Amino acid sequence: MVLGLVFLQGDAILVYRVFRNESKRSAKLLHGIIHLLALIISIVGIVAVFDFHRASKIPDMYSLHSWCGLATILLFCIQWVLGLMFFLFPVASAWIRAMYLPLHVFCGVVLLVMSIGSCLLGITEKLLFSIMDTYSTRSPEGVLANSLGVVLVVFGILLIFIITKEEYRRPPNPEEEALSVHFKTLTEGASSPTP
Amino acid sequence: MVLGLVFLQGDAILVYRVFRNESKRSAKLLHGIIHLLALIISIVGIVAVFDFHRASKIPDMYSLHSWCGLATILLFCIQWVLGLMFFLFPVASAWIRAMYLPLHVFCGVVLLVMSIGSCLLGITEKLLFSIMDTYSTRSPEGVLANSLGVVLVVFGILLIFIITKEEYRRPPNPEEEALSVHFKTLTEGASSPTP
Repeated sequence: MVLGLVFLQGDAILVYRVFRNESKRSAKLLHGIIHLLALIISIVGIVAVFDFHRASKIPDMYSLHSWCGLATILLFCIQWVLGLMFFLFPVASAWIRAMYLPLHVFCGVVLLVMSIGSCLLGITEKLLFSIMDTYSTRSPEGVLANSLGVVLVVFGILLIFIITKEEYRRPPNPEEEALSVHFKTLTEGASSPTP
Repeated sequence: MVLGLVFLQGDAILVYRVFRNESKRSAKLLHGIIHLLALIISIVGIVAVFDFHRASKIPDMYSLHSWCGLATILLFCIQWVLGLMFFLFPVASAWIRAMYLPLHVFCGVVLLVMSIGSCLLGITEKLLFSIMDTYSTRSPEGVLANSLGVVLVVFGILLIFIITKEEYRRPPNPEEEALSVHFKTLTEGASSPTP
């Protein structure tokens, strides 16, 4: 889950900040492909969890970690399908896409934060199940797992700082701007929104 | 901690969206006072935690909840003192304040999210310590505490949606604008940043 929903999802979001001079279509495609990889890894992960629970006769879906984690994965699936339909193989009209874009960006950031939160809950749960007796003595496993949690929090803060900083936003490409028709350009004369 | 660092901190942030027509000075003062209340409640809470640990001979600062929680409270104290120094009793020049404002807003949102995350970790920890045996049977305490966690997540998402939506931003007051001298107005001719 850390690999799929945190690391890969974070990388997919950063595509729009790293590839600033490549065409928007390429950035969009890479964003979708990395998210697809994240989706596949997460689904494999969640199937493995349910299989493990069944094999070990552990009840499902009772902890806060499981509630938050499943909600995150379900919303992530919906967000990926909507992103595919709206931006990679656009079925909606230009103005609906322009209206949906800020919501897509907002939900992406929320999903990243929810993923990190769910991972921290999972780390705490796993530690208390496995090393309840030695955790309070600051055993190496406990400190290592706590440190992973802290790294995830720092990763999330840095990533969201980069995403939300106006100066790091992908500059609109004049050639693409001239070729594309955007709702905002037509109605308000403003430049098209870029994620 | 839920009352101080989540509910009151959220309310303090919302002051700039709710009191759109009151003077900026009043909104700033109310923002600072509610944050002061949140700070006092959090400090009382953390002192109570350490006292309880000492009385019950429970070791301190070994869990991920304690690491994240203490980091959140320390950063919250720093943010409050800096906010007081930069905006309520300004000691810095106008351009330093204008540069610091976006960072203050960003850190405020990060602190709210970190507070919610720390509360969820605390809920999970408390449940596993207290009702480990009945938690997996979906006992009422477990479901109630999980539901509190979900409510906190929903509260956070709604609040950050309101804060980040451009349309809900406090409109600049023309009278205040005319009276105040801002770095941006002087150098770029743009309107002053409002949180």
